[in-house]
Amino acid sequence: MRIAVDVLGGDYAPHEILAGVVQALREEEFRAEELLLVGPESVIQSQLKESGMAECPQILHTEDVIGGDEKPVVGLRAKPKASISLCVQAVREGEADGLLAFGNTGATVAAATMGLGMLPGIRRPGIAVSILGQGGHFVLLDAGANPTPKPEHLFQYGLMGAAYAKDILQRENPRIGLLNIGGEAAKGSEVTRAAYQNLEASPLNFVGNVEGNELFADKADVFVADGFVGNMVLKVVEGFAEYMVHTAKASNQDSGVRDALRTMLGVSDFSEVGGATLLGVNGVVLIGHGRSRASAVLPALRAAKADIEVGVNHHIVESLASHDGEVTSTS
Amino acid sequence: MRIAVDVLGGDYAPHEILAGVVQALREEEFRAEELLLVGPESVIQSQLKESGMAECPQILHTEDVIGGDEKPVVGLRAKPKASISLCVQAVREGEADGLLAFGNTGATVAAATMGLGMLPGIRRPGIAVSILGQGGHFVLLDAGANPTPKPEHLFQYGLMGAAYAKDILQRENPRIGLLNIGGEAAKGSEVTRAAYQNLEASPLNFVGNVEGNELFADKADVFVADGFVGNMVLKVVEGFAEYMVHTAKASNQDSGVRDALRTMLGVSDFSEVGGATLLGVNGVVLIGHGRSRASAVLPALRAAKADIEVGVNHHIVESLASHDGEVTSTS
Repeated sequence: MRIAVDVLGGDYAPHEILAGVVQALREEEFRAEELLLVGPESVIQSQLKESGMAECPQILHTEDVIGGDEKPVVGLRAKPKASISLCVQAVREGEADGLLAFGNTGATVAAATMGLGMLPGIRRPGIAVSILGQGGHFVLLDAGANPTPKPEHLFQYGLMGAAYAKDILQRENPRIGLLNIGGEAAKGSEVTRAAYQNLEASPLNFVGNVEGNELFADKADVFVADGFVGNMVLKVVEGFAEYMVHTAKASNQDSGVRDALRTMLGVSDFSEVGGATLLGVNGVVLIGHGRSRASAVLPALRAAKADIEVGVNHHIVESLASHDGEVTSTS
Repeated sequence: MRIAVDVLGGDYAPHEILAGVVQALREEEFRAEELLLVGPESVIQSQLKESGMAECPQILHTEDVIGGDEKPVVGLRAKPKASISLCVQAVREGEADGLLAFGNTGATVAAATMGLGMLPGIRRPGIAVSILGQGGHFVLLDAGANPTPKPEHLFQYGLMGAAYAKDILQRENPRIGLLNIGGEAAKGSEVTRAAYQNLEASPLNFVGNVEGNELFADKADVFVADGFVGNMVLKVVEGFAEYMVHTAKASNQDSGVRDALRTMLGVSDFSEVGGATLLGVNGVVLIGHGRSRASAVLPALRAAKADIEVGVNHHIVESLASHDGEVTSTS
């Protein structure tokens, strides 16, 4: 098992990413040969040496990176040696079993989609993020890969989310909810109405529409949303949590209150939860938060390793094959 | 100045709504002749009498109400005497200057749109909700009236939101942001891209796209969103706040922590902030939260009174007239 790590992507790359790698090696959760570091050789070698690492993982040298503000497809074309492209190439060629990237999400999605292709039968990739709520972790997807999906894409997100929840969250028969602005089948947009019919007609354990105020209330194990809504929801919760901490500080709440708040908000601190999985592409792709610091790297490596070892993609393909009638009949 | 109050709509109607009315009268913020109560005469009279009220506001008797789960248009057709329809009728006929309703939001929007018509030049109504953030209150619209708007509708939400922020939040030159999943002009959906162009080309103080994590961070005074996203955002924040309180209780945080949390979360407790304004229709329509209890009634009455007295609708029409070139050129 080997994971390609994009050392150059992310707001605090490369040093915080490398510090996280050092931690993973030092705690012996990962061996050097289980990692493939993609980035500038001399920087990587010197930071690992300074950190007292005897063994250095294999390095795939590059100095090119797609910046956070670059247009993904334009950037990928202009920089064939971009770190994310080399990570994808390593997975495609079997040099790594999966990749972990903290950089430009659009570039990661585009590079993975073009470089790895889709799983057989899957039409669009979706970002699955695992969030802690009242009933434990739940999955929200798509968190931003596909802002304007068709109903059949949403249906496939339900199917992929079910496989993910079963494999990664150990839910026997995951409840699939459609994130919507009302409970009845006819609520929402044309797209959600059609997706409702697709999901309802399938053998998935579909619990119907779920409204935003019930996202954290253990109404479903998987929440299906279009990439615009999923991304917005994720970021609004993140912003609200930050605002709460800011308010607690500004109002001079005593430190006990601040600490308690911070602990509770840990559940929504996406820089600590290990990242999101890009489902649907033919390979394991973990997307870490762009603002990740060193402490976020090990959880993200763990998540990538779990995705690889449990074989989520294999189960998605199996599940799709057995659902095939439903997928094509309504699309 | 007189406000028609729908006594029958809402989860805790009629008793909590009437208890709120009693409070408003008792604290002498509103005089009996400033209210028109729409609901069952005997229930209203006996509750006000038991509460020791000497004077009772005028009553428009009805026992019909559109339930929270009823399909708005179907319900409105089947029940011509529904309380929300009588409230709208009272405004249309000049018996009241505005209305306040806590019931089925879809029915309120439909009844107001059909019964009052649109302001001249405005194409679709939008729900404007005022939320407290890091820089004081800001406006989010549309919070659910129009789930799949056209770009020109979003443009008009910007324009109406600007008038509202100026009149109600006293912002001199309100910053208008487009709630989106990325900062650049090209981000999001076709609809947000076109709306971006419309807003950018207008004399509005447009600050561009704003992402979800910056909603509470004082980046804009008005956030324009489609009704699906606006409603989702509002409800997710509400649900997250409830989840925080639940977690604090479940983890046996001491009562100091719980109290502090509750105080901070007050900012997101939409049952206490007075409700949302339906902008765009030819009349003042205040939409209270369906879960409102008595304490939410007085803030909502205050909000309705402010909308009436400041003449938001008048300013919207003026503003639209002066922007007319921009509205039509790009739609």
